[in-house]
Amino acid sequence: MSIARGFSKAEFAARTRHAQQLMAERGLGALLVCTEPEVRYFTGFLTPFWQSPTRPWFLIVPPTGKPIAVIPEIGVPLMATTWLDDIRHWPSPRPEDDGVSLLIETLTDIGASHGNIGLPMGPETVLRMPLNDYQRLRAHLCDATFVDATDIIRTLRMVKSEAEIAKLADICRIVSNGFAAVPANVHAGDRLCDVFAAFRTDLIGRGADEVPYLIGAAAPGGYDNIIAPPRDAPLAAGDLLMMDTGATRDGYFSDFDRNFAIGFADDATRRAYDTLFAATEAGLAAAHPGATCADLFNAMGRVIADAGYQIGNAGRFGHGLGMQLTEWPSLRAADRTVLAPGMVLTLEPSLSTGPGRGMVHEENIVIRVNGPQLISQRAAPKLPVINP
Amino acid sequence: MSIARGFSKAEFAARTRHAQQLMAERGLGALLVCTEPEVRYFTGFLTPFWQSPTRPWFLIVPPTGKPIAVIPEIGVPLMATTWLDDIRHWPSPRPEDDGVSLLIETLTDIGASHGNIGLPMGPETVLRMPLNDYQRLRAHLCDATFVDATDIIRTLRMVKSEAEIAKLADICRIVSNGFAAVPANVHAGDRLCDVFAAFRTDLIGRGADEVPYLIGAAAPGGYDNIIAPPRDAPLAAGDLLMMDTGATRDGYFSDFDRNFAIGFADDATRRAYDTLFAATEAGLAAAHPGATCADLFNAMGRVIADAGYQIGNAGRFGHGLGMQLTEWPSLRAADRTVLAPGMVLTLEPSLSTGPGRGMVHEENIVIRVNGPQLISQRAAPKLPVINP
Repeated sequence: MSIARGFSKAEFAARTRHAQQLMAERGLGALLVCTEPEVRYFTGFLTPFWQSPTRPWFLIVPPTGKPIAVIPEIGVPLMATTWLDDIRHWPSPRPEDDGVSLLIETLTDIGASHGNIGLPMGPETVLRMPLNDYQRLRAHLCDATFVDATDIIRTLRMVKSEAEIAKLADICRIVSNGFAAVPANVHAGDRLCDVFAAFRTDLIGRGADEVPYLIGAAAPGGYDNIIAPPRDAPLAAGDLLMMDTGATRDGYFSDFDRNFAIGFADDATRRAYDTLFAATEAGLAAAHPGATCADLFNAMGRVIADAGYQIGNAGRFGHGLGMQLTEWPSLRAADRTVLAPGMVLTLEPSLSTGPGRGMVHEENIVIRVNGPQLISQRAAPKLPVINP
Repeated sequence: MSIARGFSKAEFAARTRHAQQLMAERGLGALLVCTEPEVRYFTGFLTPFWQSPTRPWFLIVPPTGKPIAVIPEIGVPLMATTWLDDIRHWPSPRPEDDGVSLLIETLTDIGASHGNIGLPMGPETVLRMPLNDYQRLRAHLCDATFVDATDIIRTLRMVKSEAEIAKLADICRIVSNGFAAVPANVHAGDRLCDVFAAFRTDLIGRGADEVPYLIGAAAPGGYDNIIAPPRDAPLAAGDLLMMDTGATRDGYFSDFDRNFAIGFADDATRRAYDTLFAATEAGLAAAHPGATCADLFNAMGRVIADAGYQIGNAGRFGHGLGMQLTEWPSLRAADRTVLAPGMVLTLEPSLSTGPGRGMVHEENIVIRVNGPQLISQRAAPKLPVINP
């Protein structure tokens, strides 16, 4: 059985207070967010309606008190089920003024029309409102300064609460069980697209709400493409099959993959697998509070280089995990972020097995005081062979 | 059986030529896009990897010739399978310069560093790159002017090709068959979340690739919330059950709902259903080339008002449909967009059945020379009752 849905009001209050502390340090009169994870982080507002690009949504964190929602009318009933008290709305879509004047009015109401308004503008952020509307907002609030608040959001979201960790562990458990059942359900001759559809269905049956991310490939000796949807081609003996999935439950993601040999595996493929397994072990050994992302990258990279491989083309060996498939930080050589208890990360070493071919392993972990806690069930130490 | 995946090169070439005609009319030296549907529209680049917010992706349409991709290294193998020839890449993530200098170099190469660069900035668009990077781009290209190119993208994407219509009809057929099977599979006492999971699984079994959007509710006499994920509560006799889904195949969406009564329906609920069925009929009768979105809104609204109901809170009675769940235009009183053959729309009238309660119907149509072509199987004329 999966854990209960949602979060306590205390959880949202604590997130908001933490934001307000950081806002005070930075001298912000308001924090403005317009993206799904950020609105949800402060409210619990969970809906797939964000699939529709038509309407902008805004949330304002004032210096004290609860956040204020400035949202399309269609979202009011759902937002009213959250802990918020102040929900302002307009009849959207209304392209001629899609919330801009209501946003200006609300920011003015809370005294933020003079001073600094924080908005995420940095790496891994997007502006989910029309650029023209943002310019209009700035022009009308000419006595306010919009400043980059990426560091505030990053600081908050990068370290998970125990309630968030429980949700991440829950979906990782579901997906681990799903991967464990793959060998019994997959056969040479199966079309890759059918294998994927069956895996997707199996995960839903096990309690995943959605499977927004499912990619993979099958090819002898390594795959050439780790972000493609499945092809119709049938699995052949000697193929290395990889499936990588980001499934969600209650809005929190898993993100890990598994590799399987179909029928048999040659020595080179087994050796690449062993190398990535060892690289992940090195990543686990290094994943202690106080280490940096660069330390983890280097620990994994050393194993790969020592075995004589080039690294893969992903640009990093893992990343944060939470309400999004990938979050801050990146496990890369230039990232000096210091690991802290409560961070949830993927370890994702990859290597090249030849021109245009490669292999990738991935696990999901929580950084604890004494080291890493695996929340994905560790991959098999030796490459599993299906129908040997 | 579903239709073949992908599009011909001629399709992408035609889309690009059309863009270039509009660019020439507008005096643009380049069109820059950074969002999933736009990159896919010009290339066929289809991947769920956009779930990761970490890396920006860019596509430049030059005044002549094929588009140029400026993308993270991880995407090169997949982009190399498209019709593009010029694929430039950088080792992303690299927050200190995540493609910005490569983008500047490429725009300079094609002679766009002086003059107008089009970028979508208007309604229903977002800037999928960090705002700071956009400012850096503008600062470096100080002799170029970034102008709003929303109208170009809107003009292109609002009218679908026959190949696109075939994909939309395909997923609508799959979902129509899925809805037809609901009455046999749903019973009073089933938990709403389980009904949703079974429906999701059923759609995948019928050929849907993904079900990114599935919402709904069940309550007596109308539901209060049309964008919420399902609750755990069991269905009770007398509930009105609504499920609304946006499923995809090959990257194209369906978007329609169906209503069912559990066990029995009272007269008021039947009357509301009849009214929305009649409103949709009025929308169909009005959906001819030359009519405006406002005409469709008014045709449907008149039926609802004549029956004595207030309209729902969605702000419109339908919208465009394609690579996104909702696209331009909106069926609203103020939208004077003229319908043209090849537009694919939803008709989505809604009404209030009491304080905080309502009902919504939805169908998917193609505008043809002689009128609308339904691509969703028309809802039953009378409210279906499950296990009467």
